[in-house]
Amino acid sequence: MRFRLTPRETSFYELFATAADNVLSGSKLLMELLGADAATRVDLAERMRAAEHAGDDATHAIFHQLNSSFITPFDREDIYRLASRLDDIMDFMEEAVDLVVLYGIDELPKGVDQQIEVLFRAAELTADAMPRLRTMRNLDEYWIEVNRLENQADQIHRKLLAHLFNGSYEAIEVMKLKQIVDVLEEAADAFESVANTVETIVVKES
Amino acid sequence: MRFRLTPRETSFYELFATAADNVLSGSKLLMELLGADAATRVDLAERMRAAEHAGDDATHAIFHQLNSSFITPFDREDIYRLASRLDDIMDFMEEAVDLVVLYGIDELPKGVDQQIEVLFRAAELTADAMPRLRTMRNLDEYWIEVNRLENQADQIHRKLLAHLFNGSYEAIEVMKLKQIVDVLEEAADAFESVANTVETIVVKES
Amino acid sequence: MRFRLTPRETSFYELFATAADNVLSGSKLLMELLGADAATRVDLAERMRAAEHAGDDATHAIFHQLNSSFITPFDREDIYRLASRLDDIMDFMEEAVDLVVLYGIDELPKGVDQQIEVLFRAAELTADAMPRLRTMRNLDEYWIEVNRLENQADQIHRKLLAHLFNGSYEAIEVMKLKQIVDVLEEAADAFESVANTVETIVVKES
Repeated sequence: MRFRLTPRETSFYELFATAADNVLSGSKLLMELLGADAATRVDLAERMRAAEHAGDDATHAIFHQLNSSFITPFDREDIYRLASRLDDIMDFMEEAVDLVVLYGIDELPKGVDQQIEVLFRAAELTADAMPRLRTMRNLDEYWIEVNRLENQADQIHRKLLAHLFNGSYEAIEVMKLKQIVDVLEEAADAFESVANTVETIVVKES
Repeated sequence: MRFRLTPRETSFYELFATAADNVLSGSKLLMELLGADAATRVDLAERMRAAEHAGDDATHAIFHQLNSSFITPFDREDIYRLASRLDDIMDFMEEAVDLVVLYGIDELPKGVDQQIEVLFRAAELTADAMPRLRTMRNLDEYWIEVNRLENQADQIHRKLLAHLFNGSYEAIEVMKLKQIVDVLEEAADAFESVANTVETIVVKES
Repeated sequence: MRFRLTPRETSFYELFATAADNVLSGSKLLMELLGADAATRVDLAERMRAAEHAGDDATHAIFHQLNSSFITPFDREDIYRLASRLDDIMDFMEEAVDLVVLYGIDELPKGVDQQIEVLFRAAELTADAMPRLRTMRNLDEYWIEVNRLENQADQIHRKLLAHLFNGSYEAIEVMKLKQIVDVLEEAADAFESVANTVETIVVKES
């Protein structure tokens, strides 16, 4: 067991772990979205909204802690960035589910399932990595793998764009679906941003 | 009359008050946009551009002050964020008016008036709050209310999206109108961001 | 010849010069895009991707240097911002070329050539200015001119939007082309952001 300097430092780690666990829950709801019928989707959107509010609470707790602490376990700007980007992931995932319900999308184009699987995998890795911020050990595989996943998400997103514009969709339909696949791509970018911030923190400490 | 520590500290407060007053002027021009005929709109767009330039001058003055001051009344990053986000609000409001003129929009969909009223109310609260940064008092009602307004803006924006995609608009028309309602939503987000930065500043000082 | 404090300080300047030279190479590939046939475009997209990867390497080297240096030649946040925004320019330019190929655009609308010429001119000025960060001299013409170019880019972009929506394009086509002209406009904004960061650095030091 590691000696704890102050109770305050401890709770930053716990708050980041909570935020990342919440992101993982959100990504599981996204997975459930695939193949869900209309009624289930409305239910999923509500549970997603609850998860997003829980994320807001975690972010707010981190900011409050940050603003009222003299000493922080890593640079203030890095804590701010890490919390903000974890919060962004939840916002993007919640927006995606919300748009599917709002636009009454019947069938998501093939490829969206791959986007969501990549997000789920990134969420697992992130939730797994956050508790290791305490010891700063074994984090490099995490950020390398998340960067690899983001490249994969990028390829899937490009293929989806080409598919949406191949002439088989009406313009209005393209607009709706493009907004959804774009927001899922933004979620993948935000995961990479979290991983890059973790790398920054580790490099500074080493 | 309050004792002033240095002339420099004073002027940050004055510059933020100027920037927020300018945002309030911009939001009044947005209100005038509703129901204005084509000729008046062109005139409003010009006055909006002038207001946006005045905002740029205020932002530039704050950055210049920031970069040449050794001592600042609150954290440099917070001053930077506050000025940048106030500037963003003006940019988004100016862009909205500009797009209405550029795209020759005949009639704005119902709901845009509500978006603009929320922005006007947020601008009033913000202009009212900025001078209180000096004493740091009675600012919590401000940021709570702006967060509430942003949630309201979000709901209005979602309803507008559902309306635009309900089949009564041509695809090209949806694109034009969506760009306008999205940029108004971005203005509402920027107001919330200003309020969150003010909260950050107050929490740090307390 | 200027006395060098430490080898470390030197290499920030060199890394920024490398990043800006790389942006200039990217802008030349954009210029070649105009009037290129389909086969050449695919080749250009590949060379652009290589340039973007070289940019990533430069950005990563700057961040690594930043995170492992105790002393930096200017404020850490300014170094971070400068590197990030140079990186953004490359990303936007690469995305533009990629979209032209992905969407199989036959003919770019008149005005895109002007957008690209402005980007090329801004890239020349930026690559020319970066080495002068070492002495901090003669940089004001650079940022004034880049701000002027961004205003010009803005005007060109607005005219392009009006053109795309004038009724001569199908909705699907408008969507594709709008995405391309928007991302080129974002590249122009990022050049302005780089120039503003350089101004910040110089004002702090003066």
